[in-house]
Amino acid sequence: MNNNLIAAIDLGGTKIYTVLADVQGKILAFTREETKSTQGSDAIIRQMASTVHTVFEQAGQSTSRLSAVGVCAAGFFDWQKKIMIHSPNLPGWDMVPLERELEEQFGVPVIVENDANAQALGEARFGAGRGANDQIFITVSTGIGAGLIIDGNIYRGSKGFAGEAGHMVVKPDGPVCGCGRRGCLETISSGTAIARAAHNAVSDGKIRTSLSATLAREGKLTTPHVFQAAQLGDTVAKDILAEAIHYLGIGLVNLVNLLNPEMIIIGGGVAEAGEVFLHPLREMIVHNAIPPSAAVITLKKAELGVEAGVTGMLCALSDVCASEEE
Amino acid sequence: MNNNLIAAIDLGGTKIYTVLADVQGKILAFTREETKSTQGSDAIIRQMASTVHTVFEQAGQSTSRLSAVGVCAAGFFDWQKKIMIHSPNLPGWDMVPLERELEEQFGVPVIVENDANAQALGEARFGAGRGANDQIFITVSTGIGAGLIIDGNIYRGSKGFAGEAGHMVVKPDGPVCGCGRRGCLETISSGTAIARAAHNAVSDGKIRTSLSATLAREGKLTTPHVFQAAQLGDTVAKDILAEAIHYLGIGLVNLVNLLNPEMIIIGGGVAEAGEVFLHPLREMIVHNAIPPSAAVITLKKAELGVEAGVTGMLCALSDVCASEEE
Repeated sequence: MNNNLIAAIDLGGTKIYTVLADVQGKILAFTREETKSTQGSDAIIRQMASTVHTVFEQAGQSTSRLSAVGVCAAGFFDWQKKIMIHSPNLPGWDMVPLERELEEQFGVPVIVENDANAQALGEARFGAGRGANDQIFITVSTGIGAGLIIDGNIYRGSKGFAGEAGHMVVKPDGPVCGCGRRGCLETISSGTAIARAAHNAVSDGKIRTSLSATLAREGKLTTPHVFQAAQLGDTVAKDILAEAIHYLGIGLVNLVNLLNPEMIIIGGGVAEAGEVFLHPLREMIVHNAIPPSAAVITLKKAELGVEAGVTGMLCALSDVCASEEE
Repeated sequence: MNNNLIAAIDLGGTKIYTVLADVQGKILAFTREETKSTQGSDAIIRQMASTVHTVFEQAGQSTSRLSAVGVCAAGFFDWQKKIMIHSPNLPGWDMVPLERELEEQFGVPVIVENDANAQALGEARFGAGRGANDQIFITVSTGIGAGLIIDGNIYRGSKGFAGEAGHMVVKPDGPVCGCGRRGCLETISSGTAIARAAHNAVSDGKIRTSLSATLAREGKLTTPHVFQAAQLGDTVAKDILAEAIHYLGIGLVNLVNLLNPEMIIIGGGVAEAGEVFLHPLREMIVHNAIPPSAAVITLKKAELGVEAGVTGMLCALSDVCASEEE
């Protein structure tokens, strides 16, 4: 029982969130700080190590009790070769054996996981998805990502890259995506896309919308601005959201038809708008999905917020510990 | 070792194909006949029983040796409740406890499976998908269906309805589908859709195409006619196929991004066109899917043809026998 503490790190593009827990998952300490993303990947790795020291200090524990570390981050992580092929949070640093690098840093076993996968597992075990074996977690935020839970566990596909629901083409003549294609779901329904559509509407100058005054006052337009304007009756804002929700609905119907999940959990900043966002999505599924699949699906808002990723990594670490004890 | 023979039945809309095999999967006899689909569902069930008697007679075996029957058919089969919610091959007969009805008919355990799932399992174990754990089987025929193989077994989703890839919306302003939505993959890329597009092109009367002469000569236009015309340089036929292949390519890219499969197997009548159909699909995946997922995927033509469904059902029956022996 000497080294029985585990650390989970959510490496985000702007924040690093690190928690220290015992093997039962009880959280003993946490720290959240800005990611030193402009200082290169080595600096980020050192910073991750430093946050682990911080949580041990806060908990009044010796770092010798550290038994394993879990890290989740955006990016394409090759689950077989344990290589981060590309991560937006590790700028300029591709094809990195991230688990090995981190194991050298920490001196204990490390598990790396895609962030949407970790969030999906967290929600499935301790959040909105409790009790459902087969579920899809979708995060609608700057981009759109997904984690697939099959039979209670993360489904990663053949190498680890499954879940790229944001790059489902739903409007072939739509906006150009960062991936090179047109009309990927995240070019229309992500927070970035909603804010961009608002900017485009205002920049035209010919359209009467309260968003013009908001831009003048705030200096920028965000997704919450668009939801607020729509709630106050602004038809331009309403149309922007209707378009974003319509295409997200098409994407969700496609997922329901393809995977017949028991539950879809929607997280990310845009989902914070709540029922005004979720209700029309439910309606689209009911009216457009294959009836027997539509009849069994529940659509819910995620419950864990920023805790989802670290919660998922604590679950993943517990699973590994449990299987090693068997 | 008295009752150690198994029968697999592929109940199609036009043909019933029944094979008798030993538990090692060695085929002893088979029969193929027209489905009595106009005579109601009870007649079809009696016909299935009669085909089983036929194969026993052919093999010179006593029906007392029958130990289990597997049936695959198009439709929504509720895997938990064992109810066929709707099948186009059992006209006017919805919400039927099909396994129970068939068990009463045969007096032995019966397994019912969706036909695309059965074909997927057959191809995975004995066809083009041998050796790949995670694969997607797509049949492009009258309609478009799919079977998902995850970790070597059929993935049915929460209730049994997964795999409806034909109802993935790929062109939201496209043709109206039987499911009520617009632009489902099968409204553009199925054999029915290709033939319909050819008819529409000819009926216009203003367009010069060799398909007009084909229609006058043959009395109808089929997908093979369109492929033949395209091969001979007919630009109208080329455009029709390019559209069908383009949207099927979008659908496949979406599947690759979402599920990161090791392999995609394409079966059904349209795939019989071969490389002229498969090559552009491969190109689309290579150029449009998420690069790490595109790098690991193999696209292959199905190998088992009309044997795929019964092969899959023999595999499913063997799995059940094996698990009962454990």
